[in-house]
Amino acid sequence: MRDALQMQLTQLTGRLAVMTRDVAQAMRDATTACLDGRMRLAERVIAGDAAIDACRDEVAEQAVSLLALQQPVATDLRRALAVIHVADDIERMGDLAEHVAKSARRRHPASPVPSEVHPLLERMADTAIAMALKASDVLRTGNVLLAAELDGDDDEMDQLHREVFAVLMDRSWPHEVTAAVDLTLLARFYERYADHAVAVARRTIHAVVGGGPDPLPI
Amino acid sequence: MRDALQMQLTQLTGRLAVMTRDVAQAMRDATTACLDGRMRLAERVIAGDAAIDACRDEVAEQAVSLLALQQPVATDLRRALAVIHVADDIERMGDLAEHVAKSARRRHPASPVPSEVHPLLERMADTAIAMALKASDVLRTGNVLLAAELDGDDDEMDQLHREVFAVLMDRSWPHEVTAAVDLTLLARFYERYADHAVAVARRTIHAVVGGGPDPLPI
Repeated sequence: MRDALQMQLTQLTGRLAVMTRDVAQAMRDATTACLDGRMRLAERVIAGDAAIDACRDEVAEQAVSLLALQQPVATDLRRALAVIHVADDIERMGDLAEHVAKSARRRHPASPVPSEVHPLLERMADTAIAMALKASDVLRTGNVLLAAELDGDDDEMDQLHREVFAVLMDRSWPHEVTAAVDLTLLARFYERYADHAVAVARRTIHAVVGGGPDPLPI
Repeated sequence: MRDALQMQLTQLTGRLAVMTRDVAQAMRDATTACLDGRMRLAERVIAGDAAIDACRDEVAEQAVSLLALQQPVATDLRRALAVIHVADDIERMGDLAEHVAKSARRRHPASPVPSEVHPLLERMADTAIAMALKASDVLRTGNVLLAAELDGDDDEMDQLHREVFAVLMDRSWPHEVTAAVDLTLLARFYERYADHAVAVARRTIHAVVGGGPDPLPI
């Protein structure tokens, strides 16, 4: 009975790992759409968000049924609760990728970001996507060291975020206010996306290792 | 036994209602700090966030113990899960109030917002705070009509958010880019705060009324 329960939990966690890869791909596509002005790619990310939402609903429903029918305790209870939380985090990462894609669509055929900021935004996107892929691996493997790496990655993301503000606050900013507003929001979307990737990894590890209070959502 | 369980759930929900009033007050203080350049008030909101986080941790822990020890099913299970989710939403509302206060601190003794935009930002703040207070009442009373009102309030918030963008995108924006960046972020903080207030009310009602999939987080 308990083996069956654990297999179900592992299956659900596996689905979350796949979902996390999906939202990594969504963020990659949204970024390309944004930097290269690719409208169809933006539309695809926007349309694709419904599938991520549906997947979250399904996984959460299965975790709730499992709680209701099998009444897990201890680690199994924590794992089932983590599945519900993590599914929410990943769904939110999908929303943030969609926001980036919508920013691309709004300014099409131009890029919402002035070309000299592209390298900085690419670094934010690369960091965010790498973090999502690591979080996916943490879900698959429960690798504590990999989860710890995400904290360092998040520091890097915060540093990049500060660099964006430095560019914006420079009095010689030569662009329209519109571009400043777009860049402010885009940088925030990547930064929040990274926060959720950290949360996915922390919750996953906490559920298995346990002890102490629930990790603070970020 | 089931009566005791329900009493505990009602107690936890009551604590969430109080927490929600606290984050409404935090947002009110943060807004005053922001518009009137009141540094000490900003500091108080920033320091106060730790208490909100601690309260969330406590409530979540109690809900998890309740799941582990009493293994509720059906409505009681949904209510216990909603407590955990709603505590996270409220904690996030506290973070957003803290972000507004930090924006005030960063620009002190100036206001981060040009004075002609103050009325618009005040309307956003008033709407956000009113929504938090309604969400608190929904937690206390389970009032479905009040919960439904929040959807209309959220439309109003989205409209105000669009007005902020219209002001920013106006080519005659006479201020520094810094002010545009601050205003962009502040508007987003109020809008996200409102989204979480809607989520609090929806999850609360869904837990009691049930049926259908979990309400989409916003």
